[in-house]
Amino acid sequence: MKTSYVHGYSPREAERLLDQAQTLTELLHCDTHYPNGSTVLEAGCGIGAQTITLAQNSPKAQITSIDFSPASLAQAEERVCAAGIQNVTFRQADIHALPFADNSFDHVFVCFVLEHLPEPARALASLHRVLRPGGSITVIEGDHGSAYFSPDSAAARRTIACLVKIQRQMGGDALIGRRCYPLLVNAGFEGVTISPRMVYVDASHPALVEGFTKQTFTAMVEGVRDAALGLGMISETDWDQGIADLYRTCEPDGTFCYTLFKGVGIKPKE
Amino acid sequence: MKTSYVHGYSPREAERLLDQAQTLTELLHCDTHYPNGSTVLEAGCGIGAQTITLAQNSPKAQITSIDFSPASLAQAEERVCAAGIQNVTFRQADIHALPFADNSFDHVFVCFVLEHLPEPARALASLHRVLRPGGSITVIEGDHGSAYFSPDSAAARRTIACLVKIQRQMGGDALIGRRCYPLLVNAGFEGVTISPRMVYVDASHPALVEGFTKQTFTAMVEGVRDAALGLGMISETDWDQGIADLYRTCEPDGTFCYTLFKGVGIKPKE
Repeated sequence: MKTSYVHGYSPREAERLLDQAQTLTELLHCDTHYPNGSTVLEAGCGIGAQTITLAQNSPKAQITSIDFSPASLAQAEERVCAAGIQNVTFRQADIHALPFADNSFDHVFVCFVLEHLPEPARALASLHRVLRPGGSITVIEGDHGSAYFSPDSAAARRTIACLVKIQRQMGGDALIGRRCYPLLVNAGFEGVTISPRMVYVDASHPALVEGFTKQTFTAMVEGVRDAALGLGMISETDWDQGIADLYRTCEPDGTFCYTLFKGVGIKPKE
Repeated sequence: MKTSYVHGYSPREAERLLDQAQTLTELLHCDTHYPNGSTVLEAGCGIGAQTITLAQNSPKAQITSIDFSPASLAQAEERVCAAGIQNVTFRQADIHALPFADNSFDHVFVCFVLEHLPEPARALASLHRVLRPGGSITVIEGDHGSAYFSPDSAAARRTIACLVKIQRQMGGDALIGRRCYPLLVNAGFEGVTISPRMVYVDASHPALVEGFTKQTFTAMVEGVRDAALGLGMISETDWDQGIADLYRTCEPDGTFCYTLFKGVGIKPKE
């Protein structure tokens, strides 16, 4: 898998992904529980940001977590071990060419992965293959086009657009959340249900102001500063104004909105 | 009140507002129930699209519904009578200069009104005055900047931007949903809680495809076609493409997202 990756590999990014996982844990994972003894493939576990929650929510499921990056896998394994979790096996693998037999998992879980792939449909076909008929797939993706805020700011919207463009240049789609439904249906899953998880932030939710608006979303946008300036997408002045305006939404009269999409589908029994 | 109004007065518009009320009724009103005997001011009832639900959900509350337009009030009254509802009194009044004593209502309800006002803060101050200490205000507003869809379309986004601009030229703010929190807090209400109501539409929700994406949102955008073309905001070709692209989101692989904001606050007891 030669896919480039917009975010996820610097130390600050690693920290951000963990903050994000904690803030969003309940919102995203509260309704994912796998039966005792069932086998679950977590495809694209990265540094294990979601793996711990997944494993803790289904302590008697057998989870196999794969990632393409050995470095990420090592971090994930260390983290999961440190948490005393014993129901996860790690394996290096390419989501497009999974080293598993057809129909070999009861469930598949994919979180913040498809957004980075040039051909998400091909990844879903591969996941469909290893899922047993009657088994479920769960997909969670964000959508940066779902971000809006008060005070509104054209500069802030431009910085976000830089992130979207850079992710697209790397072959990904930062607006993929809204596409989960057609992607799952077209991959052959049935009973597809999308449940949007909106994050709404105002001053009455200080943990979200800090944990989501600042440390998750704005930190993620800030992560592409050098790339955006280097590619001449935006001037330094405009960039700085846009980032300042994102922080401005964290003031007592500011608000911030973002939506993640959780989709579930079933592989038909023929 | 000399406020111009972007939508609400043509027969098709009247029909649209009723369709909208029906599709969104549960989503918006399911958690609004006023105690028996309490007095409720509905400020800006228009043609009564929300009044019937309000009255039916609180059949033993005494509701006073005001609007600035006598023509709208007449329609609202006829509709409410036809529905056999008897706990609503109608009165022509300006939301900024209410003909009621201080502290005279137990609750205030305002739905799809502030978006049209050049000075929503002034309207809220007026509503604050007539609300008794300890009484609640409920505000419901949309936010056209919360609309996004698949397939994405720059042309469709441009048609929506025309609606936003036209509403702004008329003194309103079509992006007011995200501002409900600061508006209520700054007006002196306390315990302000905003609960976003996201409308997510894909082909698995055919009633929403028809009732929301087509007949509510796209119909509303189409309603400003003549104004947008007349003001030279957009070419006819681009407009038609944008509208076609909005309808395109109603195909089996399309999705559509929109969020309304419901805010509740309390007038402090000193």
